[in-house]
Formats: sequence, C-alpha cells, structure tokens
Amino acid sequence: MNIKVGILGATGNVGQRFIQMLENHPVFELEALGASQRSAGKTYKDACYWYQTEPIPEEIANATVVSTDPNDKAYEDVDIVFSALPADLAKTLEPEFAKAGKYVFSNASAMRMESDVPLIVPEVNPEHFGMLDVQKSNRCSDGAIITNPNCSTIGAVISLKPIMDKFGIDLVNITTMQAISGAGYSGVPSMAILDNMVPYIGGEEEKMQTEALKILGSIDGNNFKNGNFKIGVSCNRVPVIDGHTESIFVKTTEEATPEEIAKVMDDFDPLKGLNLPSYAKPIVLREENDRPQPRLDRNTGNGMSIVVGRVRKDPIFSVKYTALEHNTIRGAAGASVLNAELFVQKYL
Amino acid sequence: MNIKVGILGATGNVGQRFIQMLENHPVFELEALGASQRSAGKTYKDACYWYQTEPIPEEIANATVVSTDPNDKAYEDVDIVFSALPADLAKTLEPEFAKAGKYVFSNASAMRMESDVPLIVPEVNPEHFGMLDVQKSNRCSDGAIITNPNCSTIGAVISLKPIMDKFGIDLVNITTMQAISGAGYSGVPSMAILDNMVPYIGGEEEKMQTEALKILGSIDGNNFKNGNFKIGVSCNRVPVIDGHTESIFVKTTEEATPEEIAKVMDDFDPLKGLNLPSYAKPIVLREENDRPQPRLDRNTGNGMSIVVGRVRKDPIFSVKYTALEHNTIRGAAGASVLNAELFVQKYL
Amino acid sequence: MNIKVGILGATGNVGQRFIQMLENHPVFELEALGASQRSAGKTYKDACYWYQTEPIPEEIANATVVSTDPNDKAYEDVDIVFSALPADLAKTLEPEFAKAGKYVFSNASAMRMESDVPLIVPEVNPEHFGMLDVQKSNRCSDGAIITNPNCSTIGAVISLKPIMDKFGIDLVNITTMQAISGAGYSGVPSMAILDNMVPYIGGEEEKMQTEALKILGSIDGNNFKNGNFKIGVSCNRVPVIDGHTESIFVKTTEEATPEEIAKVMDDFDPLKGLNLPSYAKPIVLREENDRPQPRLDRNTGNGMSIVVGRVRKDPIFSVKYTALEHNTIRGAAGASVLNAELFVQKYL
Amino acid sequence: MNIKVGILGATGNVGQRFIQMLENHPVFELEALGASQRSAGKTYKDACYWYQTEPIPEEIANATVVSTDPNDKAYEDVDIVFSALPADLAKTLEPEFAKAGKYVFSNASAMRMESDVPLIVPEVNPEHFGMLDVQKSNRCSDGAIITNPNCSTIGAVISLKPIMDKFGIDLVNITTMQAISGAGYSGVPSMAILDNMVPYIGGEEEKMQTEALKILGSIDGNNFKNGNFKIGVSCNRVPVIDGHTESIFVKTTEEATPEEIAKVMDDFDPLKGLNLPSYAKPIVLREENDRPQPRLDRNTGNGMSIVVGRVRKDPIFSVKYTALEHNTIRGAAGASVLNAELFVQKYL
Repeated sequence: MNIKVGILGATGNVGQRFIQMLENHPVFELEALGASQRSAGKTYKDACYWYQTEPIPEEIANATVVSTDPNDKAYEDVDIVFSALPADLAKTLEPEFAKAGKYVFSNASAMRMESDVPLIVPEVNPEHFGMLDVQKSNRCSDGAIITNPNCSTIGAVISLKPIMDKFGIDLVNITTMQAISGAGYSGVPSMAILDNMVPYIGGEEEKMQTEALKILGSIDGNNFKNGNFKIGVSCNRVPVIDGHTESIFVKTTEEATPEEIAKVMDDFDPLKGLNLPSYAKPIVLREENDRPQPRLDRNTGNGMSIVVGRVRKDPIFSVKYTALEHNTIRGAAGASVLNAELFVQKYL
Repeated sequence: MNIKVGILGATGNVGQRFIQMLENHPVFELEALGASQRSAGKTYKDACYWYQTEPIPEEIANATVVSTDPNDKAYEDVDIVFSALPADLAKTLEPEFAKAGKYVFSNASAMRMESDVPLIVPEVNPEHFGMLDVQKSNRCSDGAIITNPNCSTIGAVISLKPIMDKFGIDLVNITTMQAISGAGYSGVPSMAILDNMVPYIGGEEEKMQTEALKILGSIDGNNFKNGNFKIGVSCNRVPVIDGHTESIFVKTTEEATPEEIAKVMDDFDPLKGLNLPSYAKPIVLREENDRPQPRLDRNTGNGMSIVVGRVRKDPIFSVKYTALEHNTIRGAAGASVLNAELFVQKYL
Repeated sequence: MNIKVGILGATGNVGQRFIQMLENHPVFELEALGASQRSAGKTYKDACYWYQTEPIPEEIANATVVSTDPNDKAYEDVDIVFSALPADLAKTLEPEFAKAGKYVFSNASAMRMESDVPLIVPEVNPEHFGMLDVQKSNRCSDGAIITNPNCSTIGAVISLKPIMDKFGIDLVNITTMQAISGAGYSGVPSMAILDNMVPYIGGEEEKMQTEALKILGSIDGNNFKNGNFKIGVSCNRVPVIDGHTESIFVKTTEEATPEEIAKVMDDFDPLKGLNLPSYAKPIVLREENDRPQPRLDRNTGNGMSIVVGRVRKDPIFSVKYTALEHNTIRGAAGASVLNAELFVQKYL
Repeated sequence: MNIKVGILGATGNVGQRFIQMLENHPVFELEALGASQRSAGKTYKDACYWYQTEPIPEEIANATVVSTDPNDKAYEDVDIVFSALPADLAKTLEPEFAKAGKYVFSNASAMRMESDVPLIVPEVNPEHFGMLDVQKSNRCSDGAIITNPNCSTIGAVISLKPIMDKFGIDLVNITTMQAISGAGYSGVPSMAILDNMVPYIGGEEEKMQTEALKILGSIDGNNFKNGNFKIGVSCNRVPVIDGHTESIFVKTTEEATPEEIAKVMDDFDPLKGLNLPSYAKPIVLREENDRPQPRLDRNTGNGMSIVVGRVRKDPIFSVKYTALEHNTIRGAAGASVLNAELFVQKYL
C-alpha cells in the first residue's frame, strides 16, 4: 500500500519535522510541499532555513515548493495532507482541503475544539475517529479534518490515560517547563531566554485545560463529552531546545499507590499489535531520581515515547511524577503522522 | 550602634553574598572571615574564587582568612556570626559558636528543624525569636542559633503569609524552577544543564514541605506547632544563574478572588516602620502577563523582594501565581542578615 | 552647566542604555525621547519593552515619546541628540538634525565612514573633532554629526592605541566572540544560538577593518588618512548576553615584549585629568589566566573600561591578548555619551 | 576478520563515545571495559553516568567493568586497546599495555610528543606508522602506542593538509571556540559558562602549536621532523555542548585565491578507496555565509567530517575560514578508531 501525501506549511519548524518523519516512510509517499506564496516556486532548500541537526533529505532539497491552494495540480493524487499551518491560515485552508476530498491531519490549533472535529491521540482515544461521519455530513465534505493536541497536552494525556482506565482520575495539576522550539524558529528571542525563563506562553494553559478534557472524554451520540475530572495548568518557557517537561500531580478516584500507578503506566501499550511505522512504547519509565531530562531522554523511541520518572507520593494528590515529551516529534509532526497511520490501517 | 560580626564559610557562593551585604552596613562591622583549614591564613582574594559581577570590596580582598574555631582570637569581639557552612560542618560548629556566646544566624540546613531552633523569616514569624530562651536553657548556651529557610522556601512562605492571615490556607501546591547558583559554584556541571533541565534537587522537596509548615506555624508553650495546611512540592533545576521561580497554587479556607488575593499580597508590609537596613517591600506585584522573569526581576528591592505575577484563577485551587526570589540574596545571605537586623533592633 | 539632550531611537536596546547613562547625569538633561511613529504619543513604558535588569527610571516611564522629526517642538531647546537609530533612518535623519542646528552623537553606522564625519573614541583620536568645521561648511549645517565606532571596534582600538603610540603597529589580527545584545532584542533567535555559535555577523568584519584604520589614522588637511597598518578580522556570535570578547594578535613595528606591551596598556589614561562624568580607566589589566570573562568583567568601570588579560607571546605576532568590552555601554550608548561629554568640555 | 578490542577509561565522556563507535563495528569486537578500581566489578550501567543522547547499548549496559591492569584476564584475547585515560594514568599504563603486546590507540595527551610515538591523523600523515618499528625496538615492546591529536588540533591539520600539499603554508593563526564536553562531564561548572565564555583552556594552546607541527611534519630517519611553518593559537571555551569551532587564517607559500584553496579542500579525499568503516569525507565545504555552526553541523559524516565554511580573503593572510569538528567523535574516540581501522587494514 502506498498513499500519496502532502505537507501544508512545509518550510517551518514542524514542517521540517514532517519531512524527516516521512522520509523513507513505508506507507506514505511525500508528493507536495505546500507553503506560502513567498516560497512557492522555489526549490525547498532555497525556500526554507533548515535547522535540523540532520541534513535535508536530498530528494526534498531540490523539490519545488507549491502553493497551499487545494486546486493546485500538485495535490491531485494526494489523499492525505499534513498541516503545520499557523492557526489563522489553518482555519480557512484546512476546511477547503477537506472539501476537496483530502484527509487533513492537522497539528494546528484552529479546528481542535470544533464540535465535529476529533482531537486524537492514537493510544488514548482512537474511537473519536467515529466523529468523522458526523463531520463529513455537517460540512458536506468528502474529506475530513483530524487534529492532534497541543505539544504540551500530549505528554499529559498519554500518561494520564492508563491511570484513568484503572483508577479513575479526579484532579490533575500540571506545571510545564517547555522548550523554545515550541514557539517556532524566531518565536523566542535569545535575549528573552538566556539566563532566564518566562512564566507565560500565550493561550497554552487554556489549550491544555480544554484539550485534555476533550481527549480523555467520550463520544455521546453526535457530541463529544468532556472527561469527568478537573485540570489546572501553569505553563513556563525554559531555555531547552526540544523537549517539554511537566510536573504532574494526580488525584485518583480509587486509592492507588505510586508503585501501582507506575506499573499501569509501564504496562500501557494499547496499539502494540498494529505495527504502525511510527509507533513506539507510549510510556517509558525511568527509575533514576533525576530523570527524565530533555537533552538526554527526548529521543527515546525516536522521539515518540513519553518518558516518565519520579513517580512518588504527594501530601495532597495521590501521586506526582515528571513527564517528558519531544514537542516537535511526539508533540507535533509525529502525532499527526501516527494519527494518519492508524487511520489508514483501521478507519479508512 | 556598631556590632562586630563574622562569617563562617566566607569563601563560597553564599559567603561572597554575605560579604556584599555587609559592605558599608550601617550596623554590622565585618571582623572575621572564617573558612576551612585550606583557606585559613591566606588573604581572602587568594583563598577564594570570587565570581560575583561586582569586584571584591578592597578591604576584604586583602584581609586574612581565619579558621572556623570559635576560640580563634579573631572571634573575640564578635557578637554575631553568619553561617554559610555546609550542613555537616554546621551541625557541629554552630552549636560550638552558640556555646561560646555568639548569636549564630545560619543559612545552613542542619539545625533548621531542631525543636528549639527558630526558623525565621522576619516578615512572617518574628515571634519565633521567643524560642531562644528555651534554646539557651536547653543547651546551656549564652549564645543561640537562629536559622533562615531554604532558598526555595522563602518565596513561598512570604507570598503565602498575607493570604493565610486574611483568608486562611488549606492546600498549597508548588513546582519550582530553580537557579544553578543554589547548588554552589561547582554544584551543577554545564554538561548537565545546557539545553537541559533536571527534575530533581536532592532533599529540596522535603525541606520545602517541612520548613513551610514550621514557619507558618505557631509557638505552643515550649514547642513549635505546624501550620494547619497541606503542602506538596516538585523541585526542578533550570539553566538560570540566579533566581528561583515557582508556580504556586493555593486553596484558601475562606473563598477569595485572585484580585482579593493580589491585593493582600500587595498590601503586605509588616516591618515597614522599623527601617531595617536590608529591608525592602516584601512582595512586589507585577501586572504584565509574562513576569516575573529571573534575569529581569531578581534584583528588585536589591534582591530582597519577592516578585509575584500572574495572580489568576485555577480550576482546582482558589488561585495560582508565579513567585520569584533571588536565591542567594533573599533566599540565603540576605535572609540571615535581615534576621540579624531585626534581632538586634527588637530582641537583643 | 546644564545641556538639554534628546535620544533618537529611545525605545530599543541602545536607546534604553542611553536612558540609563543619562539618568542623574550632571551635565545632560534628557528632554526628548524620540522614536518611530508607532511609539510617538505613548508613554515611554507603554511604547517600549524594557529589558534591562534595573527598572525604568520613574520620570522616564511616564514621559511621552515624541517623533523623530527635528521640527518637533520637543527638540526646540535641545542642543545635543544621541542617535540609536537603525542605519537606514540615520542616513536621512541625522543630517536633518545637524541642519537644524543640533549636535548629533550617533551610534549608528550610517555616517561613520563619510569623509567629513569624525569617528571618535575620546581616549584615541579626540583631535578628529577638528573635522567638524569642514563638515559644517560642506553641509551648510549649524550642527554636526559625530559618530562612535561599532561595538566590536572600540575594544580593539582602545587597546591598540597605547601600543601604537609607543611601539608602532604593523599587523593586527582579531577574532571576535560577540554577545547577542549586539543584534538588538529580537536579532538572534534562541533557536539559533542555544548550544551553538554563529561564525558570521553581517558587515561586522568590514566595519572593524575600515573603522579601526580611520580611528587610528590622522587628519591630513581636510581629509582623514588611514592608519599605517594592516588589520584582518573574523567575527563570531556566541551565547553571551552582554560583552564582546576578542582574541587580538599584534605585530609591533619596534620589538616589544608582552610585559612591555602590558605596561603601556596599564599606564594608558589620557583623559584622566578631565573628570568627564562617564570616564573610567580605559584599560583594566587582569593577571589571572582565565580573565577577562564577559559575565564577570563586563561591568568593570561601570561598563566603560576595556578589560584586557592574557597578554602573552605568540609564535607569529609580537603579542596576543584577550580584550573585553561591554558592547551596549562602552561599545554603544556610553561611547556616544563620552564623546559628547568631551565635546562639551573641550570643543563646544 | 574480527579483532577483539578493549577500552581503557570506559566510563568517562570519551569512553562512552568509544562504546558508541564500536557498537556493531564490522571489524572490532568490544571485549573489555577497563576503568578505575572504583568501577571495576560493577556492571557498566552502575559504574557510569551515561549522558549520551542515545541509550547505552544493551549488551554493554550489563557487561562487567574490569580493571586497567594489562594482566587482567579480560585482556587476554584482546589485540587492540583504545585509551581514554587521563594523562597521568596514560603515562604509566599505556606503555605497560604495549609491553604486554597490545596495540594502544590512545586519545590521551601523555605520549603524543614522545620522540618514538606517532601522532597520526589517517588522512594527513599515515606514513608516521613507520615509526612503530623504532618504538618497538626502543621500548622492547611487542605492542606499540599510536596516538591521535588533541580535539582542537585535528580540525586544523585536516583542513591545512590539502592546502600545504598544493600551495605550501608559511603561517597559521587560529582562535578556537571550544565546546564544554572537551573538559569532561564535570570539567566546566555551569556557573562558569552560562551567559559567559572563558578565554583560557589549560595547556591547549601549547598542544595545538606543537602537535600541528609534528603531524604536518615528516619522518627523517628515526626522527620526526616538524613541519616548516609557524603556528600561533588562542583558545577559548564557549557554552556549546559538542563541536569545536575555529577561526583559521593561513598564509600560503605560493599565492592562492580563496576559491583555489576551497577547491583543494573540497577535493581532499585521500583514503576514499579503502572503505574504512568510520571514514567519511574528511572536509565538507559549506557555502552559506553563516556555516558551519556546531549544533547544526557537528554530526556531518557521523561526526567524522570537518565542516569548513566562509573561505574568504584576509588583509594579512592569504585566506581565512571557519572549521568545525565534533570534538568527542572526530576529535577523540573517532580519531582513535579510524587510526586503528587504517592500521589493521594497511600496517598490521
């Protein structure tokens, strides 16, 4: 099986990660590199400042960047587009691509909270793909939009899912320490973050608080129904290149010890049998006191595993632990690609 | 009034800060620079690697370092010693200095939780000086030991105090993002923290959780009685030179809005009238979304103010906010010096 | 004596440093804060993102920003304007202010290499003020433009001047390691410089190579005449907030030992007697092996001294040494202010 | 062919890199992990703090660390040992291993400048292997010691070699900006390098100045003869994790343009035909203005290529350029391994 795919927003940070994840992909064949008018028509290597630590794949370097118009001939044979568009463009372009019959796997925030758009993490809520029929009918589209969560949400919901399944969760409190790459290449000036940190990321706390409830919720008829717990978040930017670290505190419904909670996280492996190309063990537990650390652990499972450590008692909550996710892989491009892999295998 | 003072552990990071705070001090006259055998007998500038951004005060640079033996002649006329000793040395040396009739204002952790040693923040629990009579009698000492809290505790307790006084507090949850200077000059290798953070600081969470309860507690007869609330903490090291930042979540006993809570913090100024030389407004509120930031705000009030920002609603707690303290000034040397200033003025 | 002054480009990085240097200045009284149309009319604190570690001076915070039109009433009583304009604006605006009778002390690069504009470092070539008569006559201006060099040039020329005076110089080779603040607040993205350095700064090598020859040259009739030596430079950006460090290699005309060269640098103090308010010993020598270091030494002489260390033999050149300058003080705002202080005292 | 090898100093920074380079090696089979008494007897994962971004190879993690005694049974079948010992230990242990019949490929500095020990870079001076007969005879050893240069030397000599061969070189001037990993895990405290750089690395300038002359020299009878040029160096430490960057200035004997010099570097590929497992194109030229950069380019050729950019005119020298080397791969473990690969194929 071989499915032709495109990327919208191919020249930015997440776009570059999409290219890396799609290089030599066994199922997806990258056909269209869509970007802004400024870039369209140029070779990829001229259109983009490539700042990954591995070189641009050669066949991509010299490929021609195309527009983000769904009618562009470049998208003719494409079935799936991965979207790394900025939110404002995503708002209008993603529905156009869906209308044009494409499946849009989007990392943009624009459509995540729409009432008929699933917000999916394959290991957590694959049943939300069921909403696509509603969406297609609502929007008279042959294609559809499937979103993945904000980079800082994904580490939380993956680590919470096995706890919720086994013990139930009542309260979740999170303080994040997020990497600069989450803001894009020029998002954080070095003057703002060297010998410094910033206790604020615009809109991030709201995203985490609403997205986690949707993802860990259910489908009730034609509607999403929020998970039945409370979540409060504080977001911070720290001088780390890749890898969001989160201090997570959880109060479970049933009593559970830190050891029991660690065990359900370690055992969590719901998609093991599917052999999805980008899949890795979703939670890798570390027993050392001082792990996970972003520089040392972010590449675990090729950047697709959430690394969890320091699972321990807390005076108020049932447990506290530290979770780490590679924000531009598991928290962005990899999340979309894994969604598409699961979709193609089980729901297409 | 002019009181002769000494420093124990004068060559390390906190020792250097003591020297800076005592330079041109209107009350304290620095007489004795105590350090290890390796350093004693050398000039201060030869004994220490000075790494502050202001030069060594000239009269200190050429002063001779002395031992940390209380019988050393250098301490003869000294009434107060400030201790920046490592915990293991503090455990034996501080009681010896107290026995020798000195008042020991200690930044070390060794004696903080002793049942007859006050752990004092001047704006929060000055009445704990009352325990000194018990201590002197217990230990048959003419002098006494007065401790100040761990660097990461102080920002928490100062910001919590006005909230507790007005609304009561039931639950406190804190995630810290702490500066590298807290571990001493060689404490954190650069390989460990560049493009990285470490979700662990040995003993720190326990210190915060026990110290905060003691400081915000009361004296009941001859005993300390813990504050009546629960506190859970997660501690992290980030690549910041000076300045501990903390995401703090508080559930008050009486309902209170973030605005009301911000106001009591802003109004908090209990020692205003005393004109203590190192005193600054204890809490400085910032209204910008993205403050406090350690590089920009740590020197507020000459490093003696806690800077608080982002006072806002939380889905679980009554309020969440960010607090910043200069860890080697307000969280260490400045804490001891302010304790001594208050003691000399009101309790000596 | 009290002279009213203005700042052009008051809201940027160098503009903020001008404000700090002019606060409580004994001679200059800051009257006009000029900035772009976007800022004019707002209060200063609303118009600018202040990112210095000391707070905005209070009287400035609430002052109203004005335009950069020399006819703006705000400049009526102003005799001197300090320019922190970007080069393209400086090119047109600085001559307009000169025509309007103002003395423009400019940190911009636009006019530095003009044949009738002096490029002055007070300790090095104050006699170049003599070119102002030529300039006024050429340009039919009552005022005039006086420039100071690029931030990375100034440490070089100050340290070279006493060597040239005593021994002559034939060859100068410099590799710079420059701070991020030199590029302005948003100039260097954190993604570009964390765990990284960049071996290129646009136009910087050319500026250093041409400016040094002009500054260390002479006036021949109505023309500048370049210094009689060769200079080659390689410029690099490193993750340091403030403070440009330079590895400098010098071949002298007459033979000289490193010790002799160190001595003439240490003795260099040409303006000592003038008591200029911003003046500090121009070269401070450090004898430690590992100094100067930007974080520890950049504030030497309130940021106005060049700190030199490691003066030692080289197999090819007569001597090599490391020089450090505070790039936004001595290398920018402080350079203009010191030029103006000297001008007012000796040449007005 | 399959040759059993050991590592001396297997737990440190360079030791870890040796393990990574020898994992799945087609020729070398890792048999002995030698380390200090403190580590011997433990499993590798307990004996070492592994801080590479890829996990410990599994079969290594649980292998038992052995002593560094050449009579330890663990070395019985070993023909080659790779040494990552500290210089003082290398001085005594490496000759002992050679006496015991082993070939010691050493990254330590101790023996590099010995008159009968070759200091080899495979692409530059493989003919220096010829000195091994002299060494064996001098030292009555069946084995021998072969060293590779200091991490900062190797980028210089590889980039200089093709220039020397084609045009001759008279003068070389280098300023380095070196990564923190060069000093080992605990070598550079974070307090020393955050928002800072250090213009000094003990012994480094001397090493570069002497080693380059030996490597680019010849063998004259039984003696090494230095290259016929002058070299002067200034060494600096910058906050970069891996990757030494060097500003290099060269005066050639015959006149040559920067373009001609770039071409001979680009064409340089002397061992191309040998298919050595760790070999990569020795010099990779970048044409962008702002490259090489350590974070983006250090992994070029799996860390084995020198990346060169900004080849351009200089007012004093014939050419200046920037060279980057991965200091713990090409500049350490990889250098030893490539030496051994060449030796086994051509000189054993």
